[in-house]
Amino acid sequence: MCHHCVIESVKSDMLNRRSFFKGGLAAAGAAALAVSSAPTPLFAQDAKPTKAEDLTHELFDKFPTYFGGQQLFYGKKFDFAKDTFNLYELRLSEHTGTHIDAPLHFSADGKSVAQLPVEDLIAPLVVIDIAAKAAENPDAQVTPDDIQAWISKHGDLPAGAVVAMHSGWGAHLGTDKFRNASTDGKSIHFPGFHVEAAQMLIEQPSIKAIAVDTLSLDFGASPDFIVHKTWLPTGRYGIEAIANLDKVPASGATVVVGAPKIKGGTGGPARIFALV
Amino acid sequence: MCHHCVIESVKSDMLNRRSFFKGGLAAAGAAALAVSSAPTPLFAQDAKPTKAEDLTHELFDKFPTYFGGQQLFYGKKFDFAKDTFNLYELRLSEHTGTHIDAPLHFSADGKSVAQLPVEDLIAPLVVIDIAAKAAENPDAQVTPDDIQAWISKHGDLPAGAVVAMHSGWGAHLGTDKFRNASTDGKSIHFPGFHVEAAQMLIEQPSIKAIAVDTLSLDFGASPDFIVHKTWLPTGRYGIEAIANLDKVPASGATVVVGAPKIKGGTGGPARIFALV
Repeated sequence: MCHHCVIESVKSDMLNRRSFFKGGLAAAGAAALAVSSAPTPLFAQDAKPTKAEDLTHELFDKFPTYFGGQQLFYGKKFDFAKDTFNLYELRLSEHTGTHIDAPLHFSADGKSVAQLPVEDLIAPLVVIDIAAKAAENPDAQVTPDDIQAWISKHGDLPAGAVVAMHSGWGAHLGTDKFRNASTDGKSIHFPGFHVEAAQMLIEQPSIKAIAVDTLSLDFGASPDFIVHKTWLPTGRYGIEAIANLDKVPASGATVVVGAPKIKGGTGGPARIFALV
Repeated sequence: MCHHCVIESVKSDMLNRRSFFKGGLAAAGAAALAVSSAPTPLFAQDAKPTKAEDLTHELFDKFPTYFGGQQLFYGKKFDFAKDTFNLYELRLSEHTGTHIDAPLHFSADGKSVAQLPVEDLIAPLVVIDIAAKAAENPDAQVTPDDIQAWISKHGDLPAGAVVAMHSGWGAHLGTDKFRNASTDGKSIHFPGFHVEAAQMLIEQPSIKAIAVDTLSLDFGASPDFIVHKTWLPTGRYGIEAIANLDKVPASGATVVVGAPKIKGGTGGPARIFALV
């Protein structure tokens, strides 16, 4: 679906969808989810971390984008040979590369990226692995069942967690499959959260953020940004195009989210580490 | 000194200065400095951190800049009322707000900001407090004596440290004193590192970075960027306009530097935390 088609579609669908999801799905999710009631220390893990993994993709001018167009441009303002130093002016969309979606991205007056509390930027990292089904189906989504499967294996979701989808999509970054547009260019296909999974997590106030290793919190073929519209107005944030989730454990790491502190920003490229 | 004057001055002074400093000052610094020879764990501190301090200033369009002109501009591309979401395109100089100076900023082929190793971005934080002398003299600099005074009080510099100047300048951020231009506009006056202190630290290969709570690694009145030219080509990085050093201990915290991972970047706004 083209950029403007998406916007028009969202406008028409929004009111109907929102009232629907606020009712039924909230109830469905709330019944199933278990979250630890333990207080949240700065580091949830038992021992001091001994290793850092970089969960950030290198950002470059042709980094794939949701809308398909280039979103980072370099302007060289000073050059070492002539000026004795190098300096670029950058022009970039906030929503490029490994980046944050702040509540303000999908709300009239939600928190900007600069207003996210520091205590929300350091959190236990939960990795929900849907790589097997995503390899079969690029329209795969994280469902409540996937979250339940994580809980069955690892125990309650830790209080204050950032819950990340590992779909294995990072492996496609150098190829057209990362954005995976249809041959007619009218739709894109990559995994994301199902709104029912988002709603299930929303019922737990301590959960801080959701993260995806693809270009959108919603799966690519979503006609309406429903996960964005359901999640972000609750005051929680999202992370898109997170990297290297295959290098961290499903449970037990701490994520440190270097969100840019830009006044009034709706998001922005972030440096993200997992401390393991 | 105006922007172009600085560049011309640097060009003419550079060769003479560089050869001078490579000789005498290196020898002077090496004799004095003690650095722990212990191996560097991810967290040098004894216990798990229990608190995070934000060492990042909020970045806004009129954030003071070294050269004096505005360096961040917002372009609103989507608006919630019309489009159901908000999104800005930003235009900004890499060297704005709390930000990194990568080796490439002052070298022909040094490491870009994206090439800084992750292990250099998490480090023991050493805070050298020169606030008392900076309050008396805006041209104050961190000298080898200041580093020796820290060592006398706190022991050897920890291996792999980031060494930060706390001049108290953050308190001036909302005022003209942060940049502190002379009345004729030809010079600016705020603290920085003295090149002899930089040279002293360079002799210790494990030291990863220097940081300042002002607009430049060099003190503002420097005619020649000599600290930049001495420090950055060694492959180490710098941090400028770091915040809140008064809220962290002089010794014992771990700094996490969320440097932007922009390909070929000479630096960029960073999100920086101290874990205490």
